[in-house]
Parts: sequence; C-alpha cells; structure tokens
Amino acid sequence: MTGIDDLPIRDELRGKSPYGAPQLDVPVRLNTNENPYPLPEPLVARIAERVAEAARHLNRYPDRDAVELRTELAAYLTRTTGHEVGLRNVWAANGSNEVLQQLLQTFGGPGRTALGFEPSYSMHALISRGTGTGWIPGPRREDFTIDTDAAVAAIAEHKPDVVFICSPNNPTGTAVTEETVLRLYEAAQAAKPSVVVVDEAYGEFSHRPSLLPLIEGRPHLVVSRTMSKAFGAAGLRLGYLAADPAVVDAVQLVRLPYHLSSVTQATALAALEFTDTLLGYVEQLKAERDRIVTELRAMGCEVTESDANFVQFGRFEDSHTAWQAILDQGVLVRDNGVPGWLRVTAGTPAENDAFLEAVRTIRKENQ
Amino acid sequence: MTGIDDLPIRDELRGKSPYGAPQLDVPVRLNTNENPYPLPEPLVARIAERVAEAARHLNRYPDRDAVELRTELAAYLTRTTGHEVGLRNVWAANGSNEVLQQLLQTFGGPGRTALGFEPSYSMHALISRGTGTGWIPGPRREDFTIDTDAAVAAIAEHKPDVVFICSPNNPTGTAVTEETVLRLYEAAQAAKPSVVVVDEAYGEFSHRPSLLPLIEGRPHLVVSRTMSKAFGAAGLRLGYLAADPAVVDAVQLVRLPYHLSSVTQATALAALEFTDTLLGYVEQLKAERDRIVTELRAMGCEVTESDANFVQFGRFEDSHTAWQAILDQGVLVRDNGVPGWLRVTAGTPAENDAFLEAVRTIRKENQ
Repeated sequence: MTGIDDLPIRDELRGKSPYGAPQLDVPVRLNTNENPYPLPEPLVARIAERVAEAARHLNRYPDRDAVELRTELAAYLTRTTGHEVGLRNVWAANGSNEVLQQLLQTFGGPGRTALGFEPSYSMHALISRGTGTGWIPGPRREDFTIDTDAAVAAIAEHKPDVVFICSPNNPTGTAVTEETVLRLYEAAQAAKPSVVVVDEAYGEFSHRPSLLPLIEGRPHLVVSRTMSKAFGAAGLRLGYLAADPAVVDAVQLVRLPYHLSSVTQATALAALEFTDTLLGYVEQLKAERDRIVTELRAMGCEVTESDANFVQFGRFEDSHTAWQAILDQGVLVRDNGVPGWLRVTAGTPAENDAFLEAVRTIRKENQ
Repeated sequence: MTGIDDLPIRDELRGKSPYGAPQLDVPVRLNTNENPYPLPEPLVARIAERVAEAARHLNRYPDRDAVELRTELAAYLTRTTGHEVGLRNVWAANGSNEVLQQLLQTFGGPGRTALGFEPSYSMHALISRGTGTGWIPGPRREDFTIDTDAAVAAIAEHKPDVVFICSPNNPTGTAVTEETVLRLYEAAQAAKPSVVVVDEAYGEFSHRPSLLPLIEGRPHLVVSRTMSKAFGAAGLRLGYLAADPAVVDAVQLVRLPYHLSSVTQATALAALEFTDTLLGYVEQLKAERDRIVTELRAMGCEVTESDANFVQFGRFEDSHTAWQAILDQGVLVRDNGVPGWLRVTAGTPAENDAFLEAVRTIRKENQ
C-alpha cells in the first residue's frame, strides 16, 4: 500500500499531520469555540428560502464579486463599530482562514516573512507555511499581553512583510489596546513597510470597541472577521476583511475565481437579516464567559483575562493530564499546547455548569 | 487615493488583472460553459430541505472530512465509470480550482514546476503561479490534439513535478486517449517521478469513457472532476478528485481545516440524489453540441472535434473582431486568446439557434 511518504510531496510536509482538534463523541464539547446556540428556527426557514432562490440559478456561476453580501457586511460593520465602511472596503471568503490565505498570497509568499505574537491562533503560522511565507514567532509577556516595546523591537529586527495581531487573542482571550496596534503599525511601516492584519475573529465578544476604525488613513492595516462565532455559523465558513479599497482590489489578484458559492452567499445574507437576535446570544455568552472566569478564580484557578467567548485557565503541572481528567468527567476542552494552561469555550449555562463541576472534581481529587 | 501598486504586494502580481470572463448583460450568454438547464424544481425543494437540516447545526463546524459527501461522490463515480472507488479514494473542495490548488500546494510549490499542454484551461497556469510553482507550457499539434512523442520529450526535458492533462480539453474540446495518458504517466515517472493530474471537468460530456480507471495501480495519477457542468451546479462550487488513498491523505496536510461548508455539503448531497435527471440534461447537451458542430461546418466554419459541452470554431483573421460582431448580434461567446478561434458553450436549443443565426449573419456580412 502506498503511504504519504511514498508520494513526491513537498519536503516540508513530510511527517506532518493535518491540523484540527480531536473530534470526540463527548456529552459536553467546549473545545472549538463554537457558539452553543443553534440558529433560531425563523432564521433556519429564511436560509431555506434564500438558498432555494439561489438554487434556481445554481447552473450559473455565483456573483464573483459577492456584491450584495459585501454591501451587507459593510452595513453590519458600520452599524456595530460606528466607523463607516462600504462595499469597496470589504472582502469575503470561505472562512477567515481563506481570507488570511489570500492576504498571505498577496503580501507574503516565498522569500517573504510573517510575524505573530505567540501563543496565538496557530493557523497564522500554518497558513504562512502553506503559502511559502517564512514564520517568525514574536514575544508576549508572561501574562499573555503584548509587550509593546519588545514587539516593536521584534518588528524592527525581523522586518516582516506581514504582522499578525490577534485581538482578542486565541487561545488566551487577551485583547490588544488601540495604542499598541498604532505603535506596531508605525513600527511595521518604518521597518518595511509591511501589512498589519488585526484578526478580530472574536471581536464581538470583547469588552473593548473594535479596532476597525484604525483602518482610516492606514492603507496597510487590515481587520479580519468571521461569522463563525458571533453569528453562530461555524458551519457556514464565512470570513471577511475590512481595509482600504486597494487591499480589496489586491486580494482579487490571487483569489480563485468564483470562490464563494451562491449557497454560501445566500445563507450569509439570511443570517445578516437576523443580526439583532444573534447579537443577543453574544450578550448571553459574554455574561457566561464572565461567570466562568469568576467561578474558576473562586476555586483557586489562575485565569487569563478574557475578551473572547472562551477562557484560558490553569495552571496545571501537566496540561495534557488535566485535559484528560476533565474529559473523563465528560467535558471536552482544548489543549492548545500552552504549557500549564487549557482553554474552555463558553457554552450554554448547563454546559458551563458541567465544566465547572468537572474542574471542581479534579481539583478535589488532586488535593 | 491608494492604488494596488502603492501596496507592498508581491512583485509578480504588479500590473496583473483578476482572472474572469467579462460579465455582460446580453440576451444569450454562451461564454462560461455553464449548463443552461436550471435545476428541476423538486431538486430545488430537496436542497432547501437538506440545507435547513444543516442550518439547524450551523453553529457547529462542518464535518471536516466530508465523509457522507465523499462516499456519495465515490458511489457516483463507481456507477458511471464502472471502476470501483470508495471514500478513501475521493476528496472534495470548493470547486475544482481549490482541488487543483491543494494538489499544487502538496506536490508543486516554490522550487517546483508544473507542465500543461497549451492552449488549455488557463487556471492550471494561474494556480501554479499562485502557489509559487513554476509553469512550463507544453506543446499541442495544430489540430489541438496532444502529440504524444513531443509531449513525452517535453516531460523528459523539463522533469516537471506536476503534469496537467485536460480531457476533454478546455477551450478546444479535445479528448485525450488512454494510450496517451499511459505514455505520459510513464514518462513522468521516469523523469522524476511526478504527479499527473487528469482534469476531467467536462468528462461526462465525452464520447469516450472516463480515464478514472487508470488510477488503479498508479498512485501518482489523479483525476479531478466538478459538479459545475454535468450537475448543472456552477453556483455550488463543488470540485472533487479520485486517486490513491495516499493522495487523499496528502492533500489533507495543506487543506484549510473545515474548508467545505455544511451548506455546500448538504446542497451537493441533494444534487447527487438527482443524478439520473441531471445526466438526462447532459445527453440533451451532447446532442446539441453535436448539432452545433454539424451546422457550423455546414456554414463553412472550421470546428475542432469536441468531447465537451462547448465547441471551438473559426477561423477568423481577428478573433476579437469576430467576438464583437457576434456580441453585436446579442450572443456572448468566449475569446480564450487562441488566435483565429472562439469558443461557444452548448446552450438550450433556442440559445444555440440564436448563436448559429448570429454566425450566419456575420459570415454573410463579410462576404
């Protein structure tokens, strides 16, 4: 039988495994930062309706430029951030991963480098490698905030072509201040100039306002977003970015033509009609996230300040053992490889109770 | 205002334009090889039903491995090609463009090359460049068939890492024989070994059987397919491949996680339930394609032998002028940049009549 290593694959892929969290059949799954609330039934009906309309023209290619969807995403951003953006500022793709891949194909690639402050969303490094972009791990403080001076120094030293700032940061939950983004942007312009990508996948869950208004007058600043979390639509794979119109024009040089299907566009448009309802769930999740932080601290856990729909908690002598012990209680959390820490997604109140009870149990057992 | 060239984009993107046919508002559009038959209404209803089911879990990530869909695609291939393949032989992505991109990320990329026999599907070269893979144009005969000896010599000389064989070939309609594929595969193995990708996007429209059975015992042979044409689902963006299971494992090292949305998977599964109906349309289109060939020849046009749902015809002193003259008659065809030739998609009988009448008119005007 032929194995992967018998094939003429690229050398850097040899011995690698596909990215992805273990998919285990467990009663309470709080490991992939999904929104626990299913879409409301009227939205499901509206999706069926809009997809049926789209299916009547499915023999035709989709709108290659996704004009209606980008217009509605721009309206959503304008309404929720207070900063006016339009069609020409917004681009959409199959998940923010594809948005980031297109950005790296445009501004990174062979002979170029990208820098991110680790631990952070591991796909930044993986998609960089997948596009032939060299990856440079940048520093964070012990408490997982970005040390602006150290970060500026790293940018000045390495002169990366792309800088990733994940805010709120996955897997730590840490938000980045406007001041830090501005200083890193200036450092990146002085060094190269390079493109700064602010990944706001969890932006709607933050205590702080969006960093999106910073794109004004900064043509090398890009804010990426997703409908996976706040819109409860991880299954939809709809990511988007907001930036200067020149950036939107530029990524069209590398996007696969007709990359975004008619059914994806129709489903996303239906979900955007239900923005208010879905943002109501976000408020519930923020309250649950804050409750998890409070209760974990009350148990004596260390908890990283969180602006996302998940919480990083610890510390454990061996996080994998702790992960397994929590799993043995029927609750799946995520071991992101940050030594001493685990990450739990804010679920429904009942799921969060089950999680908190599991942690309580394993802490008792270890006393 | 910032323009693309003010941004720090990759040098090879400077001055480029996004790929894509002109989208013009014309009564008869026969320029992008779409299937002219809308999906039947019972299938539209079934899509709405399956998408609604999927939407009830849209807050969760999609099945990352698309197991049900790949199983059904394998069953379809087994039934229509007579060669048994299963889940582990099949991989699916957002359009065959994404399938090809994943193959090039795995087997091509920086420092590697791909070769195709031009004129052919221009995305082979574009996706190669987009993944940092060097592109080598290989030869074709004057009549657009592949000269096997010349092709073998080109492979021996250039030792490409990936060889593309498009059959039926876009934009010429030319099918490739099994013997040619076998000789090119052997040449590619002797030269490197390299991966041979047979692009059968238009396979269902061919007079010849699928080349898929050739994957047996040839772990470096990949056949790519799409639901865009035969399934009348260009708007769905569902491409797939069949190959040795090792190839399917390998592309998972580069695929973006959860690349295929739940709504895409649900829609494709619904369409596969209606395979027999949709293949009925394929038979109608094959008959219309043959009629276009016959009538164009009766008018005195040169026509390339076609195994696809489109026809290459000529010759024109200036194909762009001819393209414009046909457009002035209300019919949009495609100028693929093959000097002297244009390409027309087989549409409905009425659309084809309009096209044939337009050609008749411009030929009279030029006499």
